[in-house]
Amino acid sequence: MKHHELSVSVSGQGLYDLTEDVRALVAAANCEDALVNLFIRHTSASLLIQENADPAVGRDLQAWLDRLVPENDGLYSHVEEGPDDMPGHIKSALTAVSLSIPVVDGAMALGTWQGIYLWEHRHAVLSRSVLVSILV
Amino acid sequence: MKHHELSVSVSGQGLYDLTEDVRALVAAANCEDALVNLFIRHTSASLLIQENADPAVGRDLQAWLDRLVPENDGLYSHVEEGPDDMPGHIKSALTAVSLSIPVVDGAMALGTWQGIYLWEHRHAVLSRSVLVSILV
Amino acid sequence: MKHHELSVSVSGQGLYDLTEDVRALVAAANCEDALVNLFIRHTSASLLIQENADPAVGRDLQAWLDRLVPENDGLYSHVEEGPDDMPGHIKSALTAVSLSIPVVDGAMALGTWQGIYLWEHRHAVLSRSVLVSILV
Repeated sequence: MKHHELSVSVSGQGLYDLTEDVRALVAAANCEDALVNLFIRHTSASLLIQENADPAVGRDLQAWLDRLVPENDGLYSHVEEGPDDMPGHIKSALTAVSLSIPVVDGAMALGTWQGIYLWEHRHAVLSRSVLVSILV
Repeated sequence: MKHHELSVSVSGQGLYDLTEDVRALVAAANCEDALVNLFIRHTSASLLIQENADPAVGRDLQAWLDRLVPENDGLYSHVEEGPDDMPGHIKSALTAVSLSIPVVDGAMALGTWQGIYLWEHRHAVLSRSVLVSILV
Repeated sequence: MKHHELSVSVSGQGLYDLTEDVRALVAAANCEDALVNLFIRHTSASLLIQENADPAVGRDLQAWLDRLVPENDGLYSHVEEGPDDMPGHIKSALTAVSLSIPVVDGAMALGTWQGIYLWEHRHAVLSRSVLVSILV
């Protein structure tokens, strides 16, 4: 089993496409049948598989989740790290920290419209770490 | 590692039980200790492990999620593919695209009340593809 | 592949830290590069990776999810097992039943602030079963 770290530059909330980075790691692994596991090493950013065609999907997802988990909600007691911190933890709890994608005949078996994204939930973070493990 | 494709016929929103299909693939694999990974190749349908006893659970889940993520919400800008499309993407983001289930002594170690379901989020799709990978 | 069962004592809703228990199983496995899969054998409790520093995060998560999925909601028809049962199923559907964490150089590659938790959604359950599988 081989692990690879993707260091992802981020600049604000939203989706960051990891598909080509993961595809390149799978190609380099030169395997036939495998499973790729992704794991994000943070508690206020997520992994997401979503539609890769219309950028409006990502914007609508962001707007909907922001409305569901607003900043400055009187319910939060954990507020020391800024108004986006506790919403980031909640958004992370509702989405994925790990994903497992089959590799068939040497390529990820994503559906036609599936892309792999990092979903950033905070405003001012600059970099995130994702571990990509290839199980043959 | 062996991959198998389940082609699942669907007809409207709701839960479709995959438990026996996955169980048959595990039995045919004839392994002792393993891990079964399920991956759904779509962005408006999900995988779910839920109670297998009372069908009302599935109906209540559907009704609750429909209320949380309604159609015809003025927030959506991605509306070209119908009123159920953007809600389908949001529902997919809130639920699972991959699941990993241990196989112990040749059988999936599901809890007594756990069934494996495909959760369809659209009205008019007819078929979905789920990949089942068995890691020994 | 080796499976281990964690029997987790619970007493009411909230987060129960499994990090040290899983760490001990990984250490005993004495492997270099691996993947640890966790699977919870229930439909009204979840697995969660969340911040391990401020206990207020867990309390805020619980309060927020209780507000999103209240008891005694007129929408539920599955009510025979108590007012916390259907909310428990919904909370379980919105969170994780399985998690896969990479093991790098013999240790789980969790981020600095990541802990592994069982998230109990019912009031009166006493014990939960989590399967820990180590894939080398």
